[in-house]
Amino acid sequence: MRGYSTIFQRVSRAFHDNPSLSKLLVVVTVSGGGLVACAEANQVNSQQITNLSSEVDLVSKKKKVVVLGTGWAGTSFLRNLKNPSYEVQVVSPRNYFAFTPLLPSVTCGTVEARSIVEPIRNIVRKKSVGVQFFEAECIKIDAQNKKVYCRSNQENNLNGKEEFVVDYDFLVIAMGANVNTFNTPGVVENCHFLKEVEDAQKIRRTVIDCFERASLPTVSDEEKKRILHFAVVGGGPTGVEFAAELHDFVNEDLIKLYPGVKDIVKITLLEAGDHILNMFDKRITAFAEGKFHREGIDVKTGSMVVKVSEKEITTKEMKTGEISSIPYGMALWSTGIGTRPVVKDFMRQIGQANRRALATDEWLRVEGCDNVYALGDCATINQRKVMEDISAIFTKADKDNSGTLTVKEFQEVIADICERYPQVELYLKNKQMGDIIDLLREAKGDVAKESIELNIEEFKSALSQVDSQMKNLPATAQVASQQGVYLAKCFNRMEECEKNPEGPLRFRGSGRHRFRPFRYKHFGQFAPLGGEQTAAQLPGDWVSIGQSSQWLWYSVYASKQVSWRNRALVVSDWTRRFIFGRDSSRI
Amino acid sequence: MRGYSTIFQRVSRAFHDNPSLSKLLVVVTVSGGGLVACAEANQVNSQQITNLSSEVDLVSKKKKVVVLGTGWAGTSFLRNLKNPSYEVQVVSPRNYFAFTPLLPSVTCGTVEARSIVEPIRNIVRKKSVGVQFFEAECIKIDAQNKKVYCRSNQENNLNGKEEFVVDYDFLVIAMGANVNTFNTPGVVENCHFLKEVEDAQKIRRTVIDCFERASLPTVSDEEKKRILHFAVVGGGPTGVEFAAELHDFVNEDLIKLYPGVKDIVKITLLEAGDHILNMFDKRITAFAEGKFHREGIDVKTGSMVVKVSEKEITTKEMKTGEISSIPYGMALWSTGIGTRPVVKDFMRQIGQANRRALATDEWLRVEGCDNVYALGDCATINQRKVMEDISAIFTKADKDNSGTLTVKEFQEVIADICERYPQVELYLKNKQMGDIIDLLREAKGDVAKESIELNIEEFKSALSQVDSQMKNLPATAQVASQQGVYLAKCFNRMEECEKNPEGPLRFRGSGRHRFRPFRYKHFGQFAPLGGEQTAAQLPGDWVSIGQSSQWLWYSVYASKQVSWRNRALVVSDWTRRFIFGRDSSRI
Repeated sequence: MRGYSTIFQRVSRAFHDNPSLSKLLVVVTVSGGGLVACAEANQVNSQQITNLSSEVDLVSKKKKVVVLGTGWAGTSFLRNLKNPSYEVQVVSPRNYFAFTPLLPSVTCGTVEARSIVEPIRNIVRKKSVGVQFFEAECIKIDAQNKKVYCRSNQENNLNGKEEFVVDYDFLVIAMGANVNTFNTPGVVENCHFLKEVEDAQKIRRTVIDCFERASLPTVSDEEKKRILHFAVVGGGPTGVEFAAELHDFVNEDLIKLYPGVKDIVKITLLEAGDHILNMFDKRITAFAEGKFHREGIDVKTGSMVVKVSEKEITTKEMKTGEISSIPYGMALWSTGIGTRPVVKDFMRQIGQANRRALATDEWLRVEGCDNVYALGDCATINQRKVMEDISAIFTKADKDNSGTLTVKEFQEVIADICERYPQVELYLKNKQMGDIIDLLREAKGDVAKESIELNIEEFKSALSQVDSQMKNLPATAQVASQQGVYLAKCFNRMEECEKNPEGPLRFRGSGRHRFRPFRYKHFGQFAPLGGEQTAAQLPGDWVSIGQSSQWLWYSVYASKQVSWRNRALVVSDWTRRFIFGRDSSRI
Repeated sequence: MRGYSTIFQRVSRAFHDNPSLSKLLVVVTVSGGGLVACAEANQVNSQQITNLSSEVDLVSKKKKVVVLGTGWAGTSFLRNLKNPSYEVQVVSPRNYFAFTPLLPSVTCGTVEARSIVEPIRNIVRKKSVGVQFFEAECIKIDAQNKKVYCRSNQENNLNGKEEFVVDYDFLVIAMGANVNTFNTPGVVENCHFLKEVEDAQKIRRTVIDCFERASLPTVSDEEKKRILHFAVVGGGPTGVEFAAELHDFVNEDLIKLYPGVKDIVKITLLEAGDHILNMFDKRITAFAEGKFHREGIDVKTGSMVVKVSEKEITTKEMKTGEISSIPYGMALWSTGIGTRPVVKDFMRQIGQANRRALATDEWLRVEGCDNVYALGDCATINQRKVMEDISAIFTKADKDNSGTLTVKEFQEVIADICERYPQVELYLKNKQMGDIIDLLREAKGDVAKESIELNIEEFKSALSQVDSQMKNLPATAQVASQQGVYLAKCFNRMEECEKNPEGPLRFRGSGRHRFRPFRYKHFGQFAPLGGEQTAAQLPGDWVSIGQSSQWLWYSVYASKQVSWRNRALVVSDWTRRFIFGRDSSRI
């Protein structure tokens, strides 16, 4: 109740002596925040905070979980961890969680940076689990000795950078990824990225810089043209959304304030592939390209950037091999993700040097070391192939050791196979088969279901195609968030499931897996295209483009915020933009 | 009407296809922004923007006014300039106006930085006067050749820093002041200042840095104590308000998130004088000192800072001369204002090298050069002494050249004297005299009013004390803003008043002054003391301390914002803080 009474005191303290001053109170009440704040505050249990220190004595009995990173994966893990038998330490260079899908909106001030961040301490203080946070960067993982080396990231008069070591029983790596420049020369020096909140703030300042600079009296027309040429490299959702946001910012707000430069501004979107948004449905791609074309955003597909100098971007036409240069004022590089150096170093230690991301099994455990988990953009699930385990599966299923598999025998393990190897189900779905028996029947020819019996070779041939359905999960917030929830649930029931394993049969061992493997559920994807138009690709290949999707986008993004504060701020930012436009002060 | 219809289009475009999506509309309506936005938008006349370029041909006929600075003085000048016969060019390193009295609130996130800034282009685009803005710093003023040298302040890949020259017919210097370190060693390197929006943002980050650093596992208790010691140098309104804000931030928000450091945080306010807030009434000073004492803010008066090193502040007791050192984590230096180098250089050129600020006459004209005006913190009005002009006044008043002044003769020039020398009126008020005749009567003894006749010596002795009432105006936003309004009004009626001068008699010349001299009207001053308590000193020595003043402060500061956008944002920030507290994300 203390949380509630604090809010109450705050409000009452101010109004106590001033019952007549009700003007501001109206704002408090009508914003809807009053109620939500109380609802929020009720969850706060301030005693939990003091628990942290009073339970120091118990620490030795508790398992130490160290979480690296406070992005989507790390935060959703922390938010869902409920088992108080862990002692959690979080190490991240950022003491907040950022709602990254709104970063493109921050670049142009549609949404303020502070509206999409929430202090990680605020997120975890409402928990029954003791959580300590250290604002530092992990510089080395030593899985052999179960240690993590960290370095404080502060650069001020406070005694330089501090280094320290954290021990763990379980390590959760959720450090995300950095930008992939494909070693293109000049990119790091001259391009902007859009991975962090600071990046978005810097882009915002640079856009205004370009406009201010173009307005100086001594700048030639040609130079003006260069300065106001904004190049976006990479036609994925980030690049496209930034181009759209920038176009709106320029046409809705900036042209009023910089009338002289109206016709000079140019936005170019460079994409090496044949189309922008190529992970989306073709209808969306076509709509986006058409819309950008009408609006004067120059979409150059099949054009690969090979070099970026201070003032020019050099591209190579994929078809003709022709090299050309375009002068630019500001460039955003958003072509995909790369591996962070510390993760790369760790991968070398555990023999994964040649991979792009940390390989984990379906339970998100890093392959090649114990008690280390990896999730989010820094990891990929190395899904097990059916064909690798086919003999083990056959042996396990063939209970009477007859050398052949009857339908009855097979039916007993079907559920486990489908759970362990999700590609089987996917294959059936794509082949529009209702039942896995259909697969066997296909191999055996059209015989009666009951009389099917397969030997090992026939079984192999029946399942030979299923592994083709295996796909890596995309590096999205949605995947990372679901992985965090999944892993937290596993941790919550670790002891319980140790005794009563709930996972599928171990085909290559005995008994059952402790947990069900991670399964990703795709809820769809948005591509905001500017001008209150959004493309949405929802499950079941359902595509929606236009204003209704924009409103769906508003609702989904508002509802997905991690706190009521974020929700209120984001919605009020959108409202503010509707009424007053975007701010162009260079701060 | 275009402005209005744009807003309407914006809203309608979004709602057009979605009549059912009324949820967000509610927010728009209830925030009160809807109506205010329309009111605002009605003033917008988009045709004025295009005027700017179409009138280039007329430029040669127009007088060029160059304004340096976009602070209180410059902005209020620009906002009030209405005469379209000027062509205005504004040069400032900041493309926005900042509502500086709220800067201390920005340091702790009570108000967001962006809520208190408004782009200067947005402020001037609503005007009938053609205004060009250049984001650059003035690096040299050449009053001889009527030129201003400027340098673009951008540091990015855009071709380095650009320099250019602007010609003027009238120059308005409103560049403000910088921080006065009194040449104390180590201040520039180690202390924070609070003059600009960037300063406030940096302080906010540093406060969080200190808390994060103190939470690292390897930091010793002693080091923790140092890091969480916040020192404020200077007991003026800024220092006091920052200390109060910081105290609230720590006790209302941070202790919930950093429970381990609660009892270690310490705030010290160092003041060389005997009391903090010494420009305020003694009752306010006493209340503030008492409140800070109760709250554990250590107020050290009579303690002058003589050196600041990376980790220690060295102070000297004013009474005993004792030198001591205190370790600190963050220090704010707010002891007063100094002269900007470019202003100093200009003062050397015009023979004002030994002054603290540019000396102007009562019409804000810089002494020693033509057509140059200075206002705000970079200038002081060098008020004319009655005793300097006493003979001229006598001669002018003695119309019949009799060598003596009768009451009748004197009465004819009283109004002009009072207008030209405001200290006369102030002196009468302080002496509680109803009439200037009383002053003469005092000199002459108690004789009948009609029979008073004074010779020059008697006249001198009667007025000998009035100049003691002369005071420099304080370096506040209020003064700067009133000066801006005054000067704009002068510019608006320049031609008109050239023909029909409306100022007082020229006692040392012939005719009348064109304009009435600038008169400052003091509307009172606030000192927010934290915990919803504010001290207010209003005209007539009316003092109010407590919550009612806090609400007065809220109303005044909300109403004084330069745009409806600012007003809406500041009020919503206050509301947000009431409901959700302040954000502690380090961005």
